[in-house]
Amino acid sequence: MSLTVVGSIAFDAVKTPFGERERMLGGAAVHFSLAASFFTKVRPVGPVGDDFGDEQFEVLERRGVLTEDVERVAGGQSFFWRGHYDYDLNVAHTDDTQLGVFGEFDPKLSAAAQAADTLFLANIQPDLQRQVRAQCAAGFSGLDSMNLWIETARDSLLAAIGEVDCLVVNDAEMRMLTGESNLARTARAVMALGPRAVVAKQGEYGAALFTADGFFALPGFPLEDVRDPTGAGDSFAGGFFGYLDGHDGELDEGTLRRAMGYGTVLASFNVEEFGTERVSRLTREEIEDRFEALRRMTQFDVLPAA
Amino acid sequence: MSLTVVGSIAFDAVKTPFGERERMLGGAAVHFSLAASFFTKVRPVGPVGDDFGDEQFEVLERRGVLTEDVERVAGGQSFFWRGHYDYDLNVAHTDDTQLGVFGEFDPKLSAAAQAADTLFLANIQPDLQRQVRAQCAAGFSGLDSMNLWIETARDSLLAAIGEVDCLVVNDAEMRMLTGESNLARTARAVMALGPRAVVAKQGEYGAALFTADGFFALPGFPLEDVRDPTGAGDSFAGGFFGYLDGHDGELDEGTLRRAMGYGTVLASFNVEEFGTERVSRLTREEIEDRFEALRRMTQFDVLPAA
Repeated sequence: MSLTVVGSIAFDAVKTPFGERERMLGGAAVHFSLAASFFTKVRPVGPVGDDFGDEQFEVLERRGVLTEDVERVAGGQSFFWRGHYDYDLNVAHTDDTQLGVFGEFDPKLSAAAQAADTLFLANIQPDLQRQVRAQCAAGFSGLDSMNLWIETARDSLLAAIGEVDCLVVNDAEMRMLTGESNLARTARAVMALGPRAVVAKQGEYGAALFTADGFFALPGFPLEDVRDPTGAGDSFAGGFFGYLDGHDGELDEGTLRRAMGYGTVLASFNVEEFGTERVSRLTREEIEDRFEALRRMTQFDVLPAA
Repeated sequence: MSLTVVGSIAFDAVKTPFGERERMLGGAAVHFSLAASFFTKVRPVGPVGDDFGDEQFEVLERRGVLTEDVERVAGGQSFFWRGHYDYDLNVAHTDDTQLGVFGEFDPKLSAAAQAADTLFLANIQPDLQRQVRAQCAAGFSGLDSMNLWIETARDSLLAAIGEVDCLVVNDAEMRMLTGESNLARTARAVMALGPRAVVAKQGEYGAALFTADGFFALPGFPLEDVRDPTGAGDSFAGGFFGYLDGHDGELDEGTLRRAMGYGTVLASFNVEEFGTERVSRLTREEIEDRFEALRRMTQFDVLPAA
């Protein structure tokens, strides 16, 4: 069991109605790795600048994340995102994006990263996703993307999707990608491209899983205090792929459903505090407790025979 | 077991990307009654005009709906709604509303309607809802509303909510009503007004149930063909309250969850065709099959011990 993820390793400036942070550890590969670290050995791949220091590496390494494939580019600046949320925490408003060293990123996986059993291509330019995919023969692979690439690199994105086992995107992006408004039909259209599983992330409404065998959906875990939704989707993917990679056995329907549960749980912890604050001090026991609570919240039985 | 519902009995003109109808049977009390008719004896209360004829009454009566409290106003026109949906079927666009006889509606319940065990106040002016509530001592009561009344009759609506056991509204309306964006907090704020259960309808995402004891959520039943969402929320409420009224025993958490399942199933059949077309020829067996399919789509287990 080993999991490679490629994606942004970043600093974020975030303001929500519940507070703000000027410069905190963030990025898709970071949120993904911290979430996945509870289930398996995870190895993020991506560049950082001189500004990424011991303090940031320590957050990852304390969780057992393998950081050898984090490439420090001398003289460069790390990816930086500034955004804010109004009272509708489902909508992120981007105020600034500085690619920094990510603008020149030419992914070269180490032998260990190439040998991973599972690969996740977080949201980066789809040609880069394909470059990484070509270097890693992982038995199970997943991909996330965003509206920008659907608009500007559609053909490349469709090719990238065709090369993975599982697409994980927001439901609005699935609709945009396929030009089809019905979610069940969008999922079928995506599966026709190659993936055998499609996860539609639905923000506070949770997530839905489509496979050839069926349909499964989970609500978001209900929380009275959501402080910063940044990284929720990446934490979901980290919990989902982390559990699948750490799982011993077939990736059958039951296993995928449990992975949806762990994804939901990790996303819920992520949004309780800013950035990586909550997940970096999370315990496996807290995860299991919430997983069981989620299970209880979604079960119902037929009426027992009288 | 007997269920009274007050609400619109109407003609609808609806256009969706999948077809249109110029004048079809509709209205909240109609959709509610047809859905509830699979579980209990249901009695809609409301006025219609001369234009409401035998053909319309027959649709109700074939399903066993008790129509004695449908008041035919001589010389009047029935409530009429014209609307359309674009490719996002979650958003109804109203093109015309003609209150007709509903503009003078002064609800007077028959003795049988007053004696109902369960009462549902569909979306009408909240003072009218209170008038009906005052005439009916039902042991379990519910209420739906809409943005119009939140904006124009807020105090009256809050009083009406305080007089029922269960609020059933769209989640956006719950937020608007409480001025609170977090759904779990909005539910708590509503329960502080009186209701012991709150159902947030979430369109294609399904519905969530909040009670003092907990939280439960179901996704919408996944359909590849949704032709007309008009009446989905009323069909949900009809399945939900119909099941609760027909149920023999306590309204405990398990019963409420099964009612959520039946509400979801009835709403899903409703949207497969225009207006009442699908539900009016539905069978209890089809309902049970889809209920069981929904249950299978939402269950997951912890990993069996190795």
